[in-house]
Amino acid sequence: MIGKGAGALKTAFESVSTSGALVSEASLEFLPPFAKPPKIICLGLNYSDHAAEGGFEAPTYPTLFGRFASSLIGHGQPIVRPKISDKLDYEAELVAVIGEGGRHIAKDKALDHVAGYSAFNDGSIRDYQMRTPQWTIGKNFDGTGAFGPWFVTPDELPPGAKGLKIECRLNGQVMQTASTTDMIFDVETTIALLSEALTLEAGDVLVMGTPSGVGAARKPPVFMKAGDVCEVEIDQVGLLRNPIVDEA
Amino acid sequence: MIGKGAGALKTAFESVSTSGALVSEASLEFLPPFAKPPKIICLGLNYSDHAAEGGFEAPTYPTLFGRFASSLIGHGQPIVRPKISDKLDYEAELVAVIGEGGRHIAKDKALDHVAGYSAFNDGSIRDYQMRTPQWTIGKNFDGTGAFGPWFVTPDELPPGAKGLKIECRLNGQVMQTASTTDMIFDVETTIALLSEALTLEAGDVLVMGTPSGVGAARKPPVFMKAGDVCEVEIDQVGLLRNPIVDEA
Repeated sequence: MIGKGAGALKTAFESVSTSGALVSEASLEFLPPFAKPPKIICLGLNYSDHAAEGGFEAPTYPTLFGRFASSLIGHGQPIVRPKISDKLDYEAELVAVIGEGGRHIAKDKALDHVAGYSAFNDGSIRDYQMRTPQWTIGKNFDGTGAFGPWFVTPDELPPGAKGLKIECRLNGQVMQTASTTDMIFDVETTIALLSEALTLEAGDVLVMGTPSGVGAARKPPVFMKAGDVCEVEIDQVGLLRNPIVDEA
Repeated sequence: MIGKGAGALKTAFESVSTSGALVSEASLEFLPPFAKPPKIICLGLNYSDHAAEGGFEAPTYPTLFGRFASSLIGHGQPIVRPKISDKLDYEAELVAVIGEGGRHIAKDKALDHVAGYSAFNDGSIRDYQMRTPQWTIGKNFDGTGAFGPWFVTPDELPPGAKGLKIECRLNGQVMQTASTTDMIFDVETTIALLSEALTLEAGDVLVMGTPSGVGAARKPPVFMKAGDVCEVEIDQVGLLRNPIVDEA
């Protein structure tokens, strides 16, 4: 349905608005807004201050890695610290979800291909992330990719979801704060570049990178542990809150 | 179905054997044996001679990256050289497909979780692969992941598909030749290590890495171009043949 454009989403919204019952948010169990996206494409090093804190140069092309749907959890569900590592870190990120897919999408048309936006906590197992040249395994542990709670259509936000405050709080303390305008590759540029290489499909999830302040780059480092609560908040997009638990 | 173990596969085979009609292979259009796997997890640097030719040390933990299903093609379908690069390279690889999924799978039980094996050409756009610290985009161009033709159950092969000759030929010339025994991380070790981090699911595809002889490491380098034919052959697993075309 989200591949059918803004008109279809508006129709769906109107249908829900007239037929739906009001429910209390507290009574809901949240799942990821999209539980099995065709692709989950993540940008690394997409805020220059975060690239610098990790010892990387700011990229001239998006630094990309993949997540698998098996790592996703919803708002309120626990982020899991695995048995084999205590280096569990947070990363506040904006998500753009593709609506109408395509290949070779021009930058000036790219935002027409976004169905909506959401928030993401790109939970990272840092020692595994850095154990080999490729970060993929450290980004794909079960229960580390928090996604949601809301799916916000573009008409609710500034174009490209720019100019929004993005923040990560751990147990109420601000750990990351930035503006989505600080992204090196904005949503439209990312869509144009990605679609030079591959076909974007309806439901593809683009996880747009995190600003500075991650736990691993702090002195001393800060990692998440059982009992902690981590919040990612993006103005007008939503507040994603997850408790941390140890793997059972 | 493949998550239900060897008994279910045997039943399916017997059903096809008694009810199916014989058809000519030449009349078939091959698709990837699994067109939309939950995960496609690829190992890099998994043969020490290939790691060395790329200037990498042999890894002490699997070097992993993800492919997305949008990059997959079947036997006989064209591998596509994209408009934006002429650095299209081949990589002959063994595939293991997960049957019954699980987490924390012990190494000595790991092969019980393999539903079968296949062949893969991990077509790589080398300049994009090396453009940033992460290889993902160079491994995910449309029409670069050739997979098939056959899905071979474990009873047809040595345990872990070891000891099989694996070869890549470009226009009939042998470019890569090795034994699957040369893999640094064999199938059972890979399953055990992966499942420490994440839940393996029925249909997950593990692409087990390539031996030395890739085009980019040759002097002078060899890249594939329209009109070429690339073959990946693994003894007892099958012959995967794909023509190369330019992106339309």
